[in-house]
Amino acid sequence: MSFDHLQDQIRAMKNPTVVGLDPKPEYVPPHILQACYEEFGANLAGAVHAVYRFNCGLMDALSDIVPAVKPQSAYYERLGWRGMKMLERTIAYAKEKGYFVIADVKRGDIGSTAQAYSEAWLGKTQIGEGAFAAFGADCVTVNGYMGSDAVNPFLDTCRAEDKCLFVLVKTSNPSSGELQDRMAGDRLVYQVMGELTQRLGGTAGKYGFTPAGAVVGATYPSDLQELRKRLEQTFFLVPGYGAQGGTAADVRYAFDKHGHGAIVNSSRGIMCAWQKTGKNGEDYQEAARNAAIAMRDDIRQFVTIA
Amino acid sequence: MSFDHLQDQIRAMKNPTVVGLDPKPEYVPPHILQACYEEFGANLAGAVHAVYRFNCGLMDALSDIVPAVKPQSAYYERLGWRGMKMLERTIAYAKEKGYFVIADVKRGDIGSTAQAYSEAWLGKTQIGEGAFAAFGADCVTVNGYMGSDAVNPFLDTCRAEDKCLFVLVKTSNPSSGELQDRMAGDRLVYQVMGELTQRLGGTAGKYGFTPAGAVVGATYPSDLQELRKRLEQTFFLVPGYGAQGGTAADVRYAFDKHGHGAIVNSSRGIMCAWQKTGKNGEDYQEAARNAAIAMRDDIRQFVTIA
Repeated sequence: MSFDHLQDQIRAMKNPTVVGLDPKPEYVPPHILQACYEEFGANLAGAVHAVYRFNCGLMDALSDIVPAVKPQSAYYERLGWRGMKMLERTIAYAKEKGYFVIADVKRGDIGSTAQAYSEAWLGKTQIGEGAFAAFGADCVTVNGYMGSDAVNPFLDTCRAEDKCLFVLVKTSNPSSGELQDRMAGDRLVYQVMGELTQRLGGTAGKYGFTPAGAVVGATYPSDLQELRKRLEQTFFLVPGYGAQGGTAADVRYAFDKHGHGAIVNSSRGIMCAWQKTGKNGEDYQEAARNAAIAMRDDIRQFVTIA
Repeated sequence: MSFDHLQDQIRAMKNPTVVGLDPKPEYVPPHILQACYEEFGANLAGAVHAVYRFNCGLMDALSDIVPAVKPQSAYYERLGWRGMKMLERTIAYAKEKGYFVIADVKRGDIGSTAQAYSEAWLGKTQIGEGAFAAFGADCVTVNGYMGSDAVNPFLDTCRAEDKCLFVLVKTSNPSSGELQDRMAGDRLVYQVMGELTQRLGGTAGKYGFTPAGAVVGATYPSDLQELRKRLEQTFFLVPGYGAQGGTAADVRYAFDKHGHGAIVNSSRGIMCAWQKTGKNGEDYQEAARNAAIAMRDDIRQFVTIA
């Protein structure tokens, strides 16, 4: 699905947020872990079943209020091929539930290798006479350090499949400035990356956004504000809200005058909401739902979605 | 294994090259594809068996003359979880055969996510009381666009497990300059990345190289020469030889005065050598071996390994 579809879903729910599915072991409620270790063993097989059960429970609890989920590939890769199988199943379940799925893979490679990645995550793999979708997400994150050679093969797949991507532009982490904030000629490195992204994006959809979005962190709100002005046709994925320190007042700068063009991520704040209720995770679904509603309402104080 | 081990193996074989295992479908000899499609189906399952059989055949043919292999994750991911399982098996087979294994994954993420990636590819995943190696490579490629937060968690794992990594510094592709060649203050962006890499690397091993290596393409030989001078403690992975246009005369600049500190990659040139002999791939092992020997001898015209 394209950014048009994502924006439609955001408008329908009046909620411009995405829930990260980053199943670190300590995020999974103990009763789920224990049950899966008993059933499948305290090993990689047990861990992947626990992760999948937790993911599905979260998605069941949130599907009428949250438009999108964003699984983080690293937490599945650390569980080996079984983790990747469970990531496929997580994405398939999310699609069944109607979520827009952003695969947070931050892949960055060139030419035919970038094409292979785009087939893996967004497109289809041709084998003999058949075409097979491997992971089947709607959208991916892409690292553009290698230049347009790393982004264009993904964009070709996006155009063929009506999908979209986010290029890392200004990330939310403390050391992001070491490279991204360097002065490169008359602009900063992240501005160069932002302009490259908008230029490569090409034709805009019905809401005015190209298939090439940008990751811009909530933790640097003045950069966010300035990028919103420069990159009018670029949809933003905004990490850094909540646990990393970004506030609703900060993230409002990511949106255009219609309240469109951005989606704000929260992972820990939703997945770990159960850790604050004193019920040892038995109430993880209710806790996640309450946290997702609180986040939505927090952002709606500052953003009105037309 | 660390760069000390890699350099030991290079010295023993007098061959500073690594063979890429990038199994694009058109690289696999037709008789292998056909046999696997017949046995397992013309689908993802058939394709992964063909890839694995081809990989093992290549590794069987080269293990006494080539010190290292570099599987490219994209070509396994496009085959879904089955591809990732076959990547695990490819790495395990390579280790059995004594190869140093560089997982070309170009991962780039921050903090606990980078840690999860480093567990996946280099380290171990803790589950309950046990620790499980997912992919078990010796070395990975890392994208440092997000700064030291993206590199340090990998380096922590490298130090704990006696392993190493390569940060993308100056890549071999045509558009690499769009970002990497920008003037950033008094230096270019790729120079900033190179210096960051060397600084983060810390203590050097017996050959004088830290666990933080750098990817520097053969296609920009003057950049390669200048980086070799600036980054004395940085081991180089050099793509771009052969099909991409880099020559042995170009890659010699990657080596220090002892002929140490670099390894040159070839993927297509070795994997597809069978396409030039007119035998429809039946001789793919012999063709790969002849091509690997020719590459080794070509580079040895310009590089003497102490």
